[in-house]
Amino acid sequence: MSLGANRHLIGRPMANADFATPALLIDLDSFQANIATMADLTRRRGVDLRPHGKAHKSGRIGRMLIDAGAVGVCCATVREAEVMADAGLDGVLVTTPVVAPGMIARLVHAREKAGSLALVVDNAVEVECLAAMARPDRPIDVLVDVDMGLGRTGITTPEEAVALAERISAAPALRYRGVQAYYGHLQHVPALGDRHAKVAEQWRHLAGILDALAAAGLPAEIVSGGGTGTHHLDLAHGPFTELQPGSYLFMDKQYGAVEMAPGGSPFRTALSVAARVVSVAQPDRVIVDAGSKALSTDAGPALIASGASPDAVYQFMGDEHGAVRLAAGSARPRLGDLITFTAPHCDPTVNLFDQFHIVQDGRLVDIWPIEARGH
Amino acid sequence: MSLGANRHLIGRPMANADFATPALLIDLDSFQANIATMADLTRRRGVDLRPHGKAHKSGRIGRMLIDAGAVGVCCATVREAEVMADAGLDGVLVTTPVVAPGMIARLVHAREKAGSLALVVDNAVEVECLAAMARPDRPIDVLVDVDMGLGRTGITTPEEAVALAERISAAPALRYRGVQAYYGHLQHVPALGDRHAKVAEQWRHLAGILDALAAAGLPAEIVSGGGTGTHHLDLAHGPFTELQPGSYLFMDKQYGAVEMAPGGSPFRTALSVAARVVSVAQPDRVIVDAGSKALSTDAGPALIASGASPDAVYQFMGDEHGAVRLAAGSARPRLGDLITFTAPHCDPTVNLFDQFHIVQDGRLVDIWPIEARGH
Repeated sequence: MSLGANRHLIGRPMANADFATPALLIDLDSFQANIATMADLTRRRGVDLRPHGKAHKSGRIGRMLIDAGAVGVCCATVREAEVMADAGLDGVLVTTPVVAPGMIARLVHAREKAGSLALVVDNAVEVECLAAMARPDRPIDVLVDVDMGLGRTGITTPEEAVALAERISAAPALRYRGVQAYYGHLQHVPALGDRHAKVAEQWRHLAGILDALAAAGLPAEIVSGGGTGTHHLDLAHGPFTELQPGSYLFMDKQYGAVEMAPGGSPFRTALSVAARVVSVAQPDRVIVDAGSKALSTDAGPALIASGASPDAVYQFMGDEHGAVRLAAGSARPRLGDLITFTAPHCDPTVNLFDQFHIVQDGRLVDIWPIEARGH
Repeated sequence: MSLGANRHLIGRPMANADFATPALLIDLDSFQANIATMADLTRRRGVDLRPHGKAHKSGRIGRMLIDAGAVGVCCATVREAEVMADAGLDGVLVTTPVVAPGMIARLVHAREKAGSLALVVDNAVEVECLAAMARPDRPIDVLVDVDMGLGRTGITTPEEAVALAERISAAPALRYRGVQAYYGHLQHVPALGDRHAKVAEQWRHLAGILDALAAAGLPAEIVSGGGTGTHHLDLAHGPFTELQPGSYLFMDKQYGAVEMAPGGSPFRTALSVAARVVSVAQPDRVIVDAGSKALSTDAGPALIASGASPDAVYQFMGDEHGAVRLAAGSARPRLGDLITFTAPHCDPTVNLFDQFHIVQDGRLVDIWPIEARGH
C-alpha cells in the first residue's frame, strides 16, 4: 500500500509547509500508553484482550497489540480478516455474521494464513454453509452470537443458543468455543452508574443463556464482549473471559464525554486530523481543508486539538472544508497554518484515510498504511 | 487500482451468492442518460459544462464526460487533479484554494500531463506562491474565487476581486481567466421559487464584481459556478459561462427532495449501495451489512431502492450494519438476500468505496476504480 504524499517527510517536523493535508495523525506516545494500559488492566484481572481491528484496520497495529499481550484481534469485515491473516496474526475473530458463500470462502482461505480463525453465527443456515465449506484439517472456531439488547445481530433465547451450539458441535470442521455478547449501544451511556445498571441487566440475560449451554453439556469456554466505554465495569464485575474494545487505542470526542472509570479515563487522546487554513477571507472564521470526507459526521462537529483557541468552534462546510469560528478577541490563525482536530468518532474517521501519520515530539516519525479501509 | 473482490463476477447476474457486499452500484442506463441530459441542456443554452469530479473521483468517468462534450472536469482536491491529469484530461479546474507549497508543486507537476489546469484563489499570498512556482512555458489559468453567500472561500467585494485579478495578470506564468462563483448552500433549497429568489440575490452581488472587473480592463472570460440543484435557474437566467454540477450523474436522497425544474427532475437515480441480509434474528427487522462505513451519515437514513418494501425504514446500526425495519404485513427479506439503497448523499458515499460496480439489465457488466477517493 502507498504511504501517500507525505512519505518524503518522515523524520522531519510535522508542521511543514510541504505537509499534505488533510492527514490522520497518531501521537505515538499516547498511543503506546493506551496499548499498555489496557493490556495491564486486563492482565491484572485475568481477562483476555482481543482488541477490535475495525478501529484501526492495520495489520501492523494488530501485530503490536498481540506483541503487547493480546490473544488476537477482532475484525468486523472480511477484508479486515484478510489483512490480519496476511499479517500472520493468530486469534482472528470476525465479530459479525457472514452469510454469502463467496465471502465465507474468503474467510476459509484466510484461515490458511491465520494461526486460528473464529466466526460468530446467529442462524442455523450459516452453520450449515460454514460446515460445508470449512476444511476439517483447518477447523474454524465458532461462537454463538448473543443479542445483548442492541437489537442488531445475535440470538435472544437460551433455546436458540443451545440449538446453534449443538449444530456447531456436530460439524467436523467447526469447533464450538462459546459465545459473543456485545452491547455496543451501552458504550456511550455518559454516567458510570447508569451504565452499570444497564450492563448488569444484560449480564443477567446472558447468565441465563450461559447456564442453559452448560446444562446442555456445551459450556462456553469463551465469552467475548465488552468495549472501551464499559471496560471498567466489564473487568470489575462482567461475565467475560475476553474483552474486545477498539476505541481505547485512539479515543475521540464521543468517549471524551463518557465517565470511563471512577478515577477518570485511563486513556489519552492519541488520534487527530491535521488540516490547513486555506482561506482567511471571512472576518469571523478561517476555513480549513477538512470536511465531511476527513471527519466523520455521525457525532457532530470536531473539537480543536491544537493550532487555534480551544474555544473556537468547528463547523462542517462541505466535503472538503470546515469553518473554524473564532471567539471575539482570540488569536487568528494565518493562511497556511496547521490546525488539528480531535475526531468526533474515531472508527469512521480512520476509515476515510489510507495512512496513519505517526508523530512523536512534533516530528513525523513513520507512516502506517490502513490496508483494511473500505470493503 | 484493484477491481476488488467481485472482479470475477463481471458478465454475471448481479444478485449472485458470490457477490461481495456492501458494494457501490451504478445503473449504467440511468447514468448515461444523466450524462446526455446535462450535456444537452447546457449545449442548447450555449453554456459550457465542466462537471465536478468530487462526485465521482474517477478518471474514466472524467473521460466519458469530456467525450460527451464537457470542456473539462472540476476537482476539489489535489489528488483528484492528479488522477484527472494522469488520465490525460484537458480542462482540469481545481475549485478550492490550495495554499501549501508542497501541494501547489503537485499541481504544477500535474499541469505537465493535463492539457490545461486552472486554479482558484482568494488571497494575494496564494497568487505570489503560485506565480513563483508555475512555469511560463506551461502557464496555469487562474480564477478569482468569489463568495456567493456560502461563507466558505472567496472574496466578497469588487475591490478585492480587481486587486487579485491585477496580481494574477501581472504574473508571467499565470493567465487570468475570470471568476468562480459557487453557491453550494443554495443547491438544496426545496422549492424552485425560493431557490430562484436566493440565487438572484447572489447574481446581483456577482454582477457588481463582474462590472468592476470589466471597468478595470479585466473582464471575466470564464464565470464558473452553479450546480445540480440550481442548474435549471443557472441555465435559464444565470450569469455563468460554464456550470460545474456533479451530483446529477448519480442523484441521491437529498436531491430527490428538491424541486429541480418546472417539469420535475430530468435526472434519474443511478447510484445505489447493495447490501446483504446478514441476520434475521429480530422479529420486526432484518439486519444488512451496510452501516456508516458504506452510507454517508450526513443526510439521514438511506432509502430502500430494491429488495424490500419501499415503506421499510433503514436505520444505522453501527459501522458495518443497518436495520431495515419492516412494516407490519410486508414481505420479509430472507437471510442472504440483497437489498439496495439510494444513498442519502452521493459524494461522501462514493468516497467510502474503492470501486463502482456497473450494472445493466441485472448484470454486473464492469467495475471502475474510484482512484481519487481519499486524500
